Amino acid sequence: MTGSLIIAGLGPGDAALVTPEVSAALACATDVVGYAPYVARVPAREGLTLHPSDNRMELQRAGEALKLAAEGRNVVIVSSGDPGVFAMAAAVFEALEASPQRQNLSIRVLPGITAMLAAAARAGAPLGHDFCAINLSDNLKPWLTIEKRLRLAAEADFAIALYNPRSASRPDGFARALEVLKEAGCGERMIIFAHSVTTPKERIEILPLQEARADMADMATLVIVGNSATRRVGRWVYAPRRAS
Amino acid sequence: MTGSLIIAGLGPGDAALVTPEVSAALACATDVVGYAPYVARVPAREGLTLHPSDNRMELQRAGEALKLAAEGRNVVIVSSGDPGVFAMAAAVFEALEASPQRQNLSIRVLPGITAMLAAAARAGAPLGHDFCAINLSDNLKPWLTIEKRLRLAAEADFAIALYNPRSASRPDGFARALEVLKEAGCGERMIIFAHSVTTPKERIEILPLQEARADMADMATLVIVGNSATRRVGRWVYAPRRAS
Repeated sequence: MTGSLIIAGLGPGDAALVTPEVSAALACATDVVGYAPYVARVPAREGLTLHPSDNRMELQRAGEALKLAAEGRNVVIVSSGDPGVFAMAAAVFEALEASPQRQNLSIRVLPGITAMLAAAARAGAPLGHDFCAINLSDNLKPWLTIEKRLRLAAEADFAIALYNPRSASRPDGFARALEVLKEAGCGERMIIFAHSVTTPKERIEILPLQEARADMADMATLVIVGNSATRRVGRWVYAPRRAS
Repeated sequence: MTGSLIIAGLGPGDAALVTPEVSAALACATDVVGYAPYVARVPAREGLTLHPSDNRMELQRAGEALKLAAEGRNVVIVSSGDPGVFAMAAAVFEALEASPQRQNLSIRVLPGITAMLAAAARAGAPLGHDFCAINLSDNLKPWLTIEKRLRLAAEADFAIALYNPRSASRPDGFARALEVLKEAGCGERMIIFAHSVTTPKERIEILPLQEARADMADMATLVIVGNSATRRVGRWVYAPRRAS
């Protein structure tokens, strides 16, 4: 009786963006563990136990998944997007570090379409040149670290994908992030708000950063700030490949 | 007779990482356009014309695809990985900007698993904290811009994904990139060389950056430099979620 743990990405929402590799893993699972809205995306079937949990329970959830796998279950932890990008994979390895007796378990990470790739595809090609991805949640890092990274990203002229821009418990950070970017000379850059991308609620807004308002973002929004050369063609936005 | 153009990502190599959305698009295509090794990944079938082309022909290829779509064909341009990340999508929008008469064409971008996500999944979770992606090819941007971005990325303590690290026509840039990162204090950071990830030739090497040699990378290699906190657990490497 050998269990296994797979950390899988479900992509941004549309079932047509779930990789066949992830679908095959879910078809073989005995247990699916994850934040409730993501677990709800896995079809119920006989022989499959679903373990939905609350948000911000990442470490406990990872520990539970490792325990089930050690007991011989075939466990899949599901994340939205890609499990390695601001999602469950890092939490599982943290939990594994705290449980050396579990380090011989069979573990696999299965990539998924992370939100910035889906958002970029809808807008055009704003990530076609060098870019960075910053998680705006300051639950696990100081806000000043975020500000420093925003300033350096602006100086490097990266396009900037902003994950988790704003939530009920963090209503003010995104407004401050917009201020920092304006102070860093990014006011005329293009900003893209991709809401609930690839779901029926999808909505894409594109405008100059200096006209953006903080309440344009919530937790279902992925924000992309273009680089200084990002431009429009028709309804599209793209970063030219050539840079000076 | 209305044609269409789809810009699709085939993922890093394994067919199990091609999204159902992309597979469906390929099943409806009349024409597939792309760099020959990527076109070779599309199964031939009756009614489908394959248009393989050489490397570094991006703009011509994009123009050809737009022309075919304008003639009423259902064209799919294929890229490896994600089409929006250092791939064909930006080239298509550049070509579209030069052909205003084509701007009413139906165009869609379909995301794919870009190499850094597949490489990160194999290594653990090195992109679990803020990160950036830099294309090391200086065909379309000055080398000094690349060096500046490497230094700022190190200062921001981003994990750094390096695309196109080294090729026959650019044998020296990657060695210089390693020097720049050492000068910027990244010598003790972990570096991951992911060769031909998700293919039968896959090989993953993980070592301290100061021990890395430039000849460890070629054009089939995706390199990830960890951030300053990136650590090992068992055979895995991950970026802790918490930062100071």
